[in-house]
Amino acid sequence: MDKGIGIAGIAGRMGRLLTEEVAAAGARLAGGIDRSGSGVAGAALFPDIAALAAGSDVVVDFTHASTAIPHARAVAAAGTAWVLGTSGLSAADETAVAEAARHVPVVYAPNFAPGVNLVLALAEKLAAALPAEQYDAEIVEMHHRQKVDAPSGTAIGMGRAVAKGRGVRLEDVAESGRDGHTGPRKTGAIGFAALRGGQVVGEHTLLFAAATEHIALSHRAFDRRAFATGAIRAALWTQGRPPGLYSMMDVLGMR
Amino acid sequence: MDKGIGIAGIAGRMGRLLTEEVAAAGARLAGGIDRSGSGVAGAALFPDIAALAAGSDVVVDFTHASTAIPHARAVAAAGTAWVLGTSGLSAADETAVAEAARHVPVVYAPNFAPGVNLVLALAEKLAAALPAEQYDAEIVEMHHRQKVDAPSGTAIGMGRAVAKGRGVRLEDVAESGRDGHTGPRKTGAIGFAALRGGQVVGEHTLLFAAATEHIALSHRAFDRRAFATGAIRAALWTQGRPPGLYSMMDVLGMR
Amino acid sequence: MDKGIGIAGIAGRMGRLLTEEVAAAGARLAGGIDRSGSGVAGAALFPDIAALAAGSDVVVDFTHASTAIPHARAVAAAGTAWVLGTSGLSAADETAVAEAARHVPVVYAPNFAPGVNLVLALAEKLAAALPAEQYDAEIVEMHHRQKVDAPSGTAIGMGRAVAKGRGVRLEDVAESGRDGHTGPRKTGAIGFAALRGGQVVGEHTLLFAAATEHIALSHRAFDRRAFATGAIRAALWTQGRPPGLYSMMDVLGMR
Amino acid sequence: MDKGIGIAGIAGRMGRLLTEEVAAAGARLAGGIDRSGSGVAGAALFPDIAALAAGSDVVVDFTHASTAIPHARAVAAAGTAWVLGTSGLSAADETAVAEAARHVPVVYAPNFAPGVNLVLALAEKLAAALPAEQYDAEIVEMHHRQKVDAPSGTAIGMGRAVAKGRGVRLEDVAESGRDGHTGPRKTGAIGFAALRGGQVVGEHTLLFAAATEHIALSHRAFDRRAFATGAIRAALWTQGRPPGLYSMMDVLGMR
Repeated sequence: MDKGIGIAGIAGRMGRLLTEEVAAAGARLAGGIDRSGSGVAGAALFPDIAALAAGSDVVVDFTHASTAIPHARAVAAAGTAWVLGTSGLSAADETAVAEAARHVPVVYAPNFAPGVNLVLALAEKLAAALPAEQYDAEIVEMHHRQKVDAPSGTAIGMGRAVAKGRGVRLEDVAESGRDGHTGPRKTGAIGFAALRGGQVVGEHTLLFAAATEHIALSHRAFDRRAFATGAIRAALWTQGRPPGLYSMMDVLGMR
Repeated sequence: MDKGIGIAGIAGRMGRLLTEEVAAAGARLAGGIDRSGSGVAGAALFPDIAALAAGSDVVVDFTHASTAIPHARAVAAAGTAWVLGTSGLSAADETAVAEAARHVPVVYAPNFAPGVNLVLALAEKLAAALPAEQYDAEIVEMHHRQKVDAPSGTAIGMGRAVAKGRGVRLEDVAESGRDGHTGPRKTGAIGFAALRGGQVVGEHTLLFAAATEHIALSHRAFDRRAFATGAIRAALWTQGRPPGLYSMMDVLGMR
Repeated sequence: MDKGIGIAGIAGRMGRLLTEEVAAAGARLAGGIDRSGSGVAGAALFPDIAALAAGSDVVVDFTHASTAIPHARAVAAAGTAWVLGTSGLSAADETAVAEAARHVPVVYAPNFAPGVNLVLALAEKLAAALPAEQYDAEIVEMHHRQKVDAPSGTAIGMGRAVAKGRGVRLEDVAESGRDGHTGPRKTGAIGFAALRGGQVVGEHTLLFAAATEHIALSHRAFDRRAFATGAIRAALWTQGRPPGLYSMMDVLGMR
Repeated sequence: MDKGIGIAGIAGRMGRLLTEEVAAAGARLAGGIDRSGSGVAGAALFPDIAALAAGSDVVVDFTHASTAIPHARAVAAAGTAWVLGTSGLSAADETAVAEAARHVPVVYAPNFAPGVNLVLALAEKLAAALPAEQYDAEIVEMHHRQKVDAPSGTAIGMGRAVAKGRGVRLEDVAESGRDGHTGPRKTGAIGFAALRGGQVVGEHTLLFAAATEHIALSHRAFDRRAFATGAIRAALWTQGRPPGLYSMMDVLGMR
């Protein structure tokens, strides 16, 4: 890597963690941009995304959905790899991401914690191997008291992985928020339960419950830094890759 | 005891276990009723609850919420003690239970296993000691796939114990079945989540989650017989007691 | 399947569970043999292994290491598939098993619970994906109070799977039974801890603990029937397969 | 409180956390002393323990065993309450602490996390209520990879609480670090298992395992701040108390 890793949103909470993780990985920091106009000590501040893309080998981007389209164009024009962790992209945003991926390697994932991505990959394998008639799938997650929605995006991702492994659509089998008279559990259902409390960064458990055995796969995140660590790992992985749209599972060698 | 122990729902799964536990305790079996019209070998089958109440010293009842009001009237009219383990009672049902308890001793409990009752007693102590502003209380339970309601009666009993320890009413603070846009967790809320799957007899966990520590108390039941053993112990305990509404903690001497 | 499933040791504890599981799977029971000379109601009793092999499409065998060689010869001679769950085989026994597998499909595994085998397969994948320098692997198991050794065979199997995924030998990195002054944990160590109590059939958890995230994979067995269920599944799976030595991972599609 | 809370060792790691927790509790900080001679921004620095005691309503002290005797004399002379979290006190040190407690309220505890103390108190109650012949007690703890001994002090404290509840000595019944041929579990044994990995601040679980039910009590600490929070709670609790030697269980109302 010649120019190093560029960081969009360098002055924000995630940007600062990313900056620290570049150093922890022994990698070179190209610099960053931030909509606030402020930077972080010791890092070059670029005027805009075009300059950042031109001055970096790969841009790591945990900013906002509103910048997805201009950022996609800038990285494609500069031939710079892109690690994208922004959530809430529209269909139009995703089209722009796919277009950029025709020109440069793009790693796009809702969650960069290595363990979560492994767990999602294994969830699909478990679901494919365990007959839905015998193994009831339940997903339980816990997050801090400030979280405003349920189930979490990662829990839904787990549910999609199970549904994919079983060859069904999650929408057809999800049972979330049981309360009151629910009737017996439907065969093949995928259940969701949400706990809220304290300052839990994120805990997810996928349970397959049969009459004679239970199998559980769980992930606990203690620090948002896990997302930054994973993103920098992805950034390093892009170097020398052909253009394409990749996920953290590609980075982790899980495909 | 002259007439012996009567069993409502004698031909069901719980009824058969209760019948065995009457014998194991060396007590007398008066007989039973069953909505299926069938009985069990060696036990008198009564035509209805009025006849069963008249022919028994105490009726043990693990049937269905829909029979709570007629059974309450019948035991009160006959002056017969009542051990009630039915879950999902409505407010009107509970009023009928309380009215019966003005005339006869009634042991009404969500769960007759000794360990569960210990856990309920400790839940109240934990709740009294841990400030609700800092420690978020969450209750998660798991039961077999046939269970038709949520949360379980024992989970609600845990919630009542926490509410009592905090000096609030459960109805004012319960959050059950989170799904969709829930908003942030309310201070002082008691949350409930229900998992369903396999043949789990009953698992309950009460979690107090603060920013820097979590405390959990959990109970796992492996065999329904524990409930039958406790219920027959309660039935024997009612003999010679004054009218009143009792719990398993009274039976176990934990008050 | 024309002739059905034959069971060696049909009158023993495992044999009876296997017989029930043949019925539960809707499969045909050919009959069995038993060294006691007794059978089970409704099942044909064959005079010896040669007759059982000739009269069955597949023989399920949870008997003794001492019969491995004659059973291997009999199934090979009859062209009958073999599901072998016997433990403690010598090198000579294993050679006979491998020789039979040149002529017929043989499924040979130390543990037929589907979940355990899945967990072992996933343990290796997790270990291969998670760097040993960052993710500390710990294995904790719980069994009933009668168990006389620690760690359990399945826990050791989990440890071997982790070691294989990391390209090391378990013997070089195992840390079992920590007590007293242990010094800091060695990088790359695989830790073992054993709990004993109650009548736990078997619980195993494999934990990968990094600074910012934990990933856990766990299995709980509630009933020895899980082993019978898995064996009958393996028996049905052998039909139409070419000769070869298979494991439960092949049956489960994990290879 | 007129003068506020004084902190011995104010410039150390615990001192800084204590300073923050005084503010978080909305309490008044009197100031501190530190053997390094340095203080913290915004806090008065006193020349010695006599001055600190004279200038504070209560002194919080997580320093060294070597200062226990002079500190005991200073708080007694000034009539100032004392919250003492220092470990490794000798018999002579403990005599000095007891002497101070004849003149002022002293809260002395090895662990100020509120949850840990509650868990220890409940552990004793559980052990007293559950017959040792039926309920096997197991303690499992997990700590970060740097920890050099096992079991943890808190795990041993849990074991002592269970032993006290059962009326036995821990030394007579402890089973720690099972490995190899252990023989069956002894009736009445208290088992210990230690996991090590990641950066776990401290997790402890006490399990009572009977044939038909399991009861578990667990504590997870996420942040050493929990110790500071508990100590400031204890400091506020001392105000208006009569002289005496108290523990965190008194503060928490568990006696």
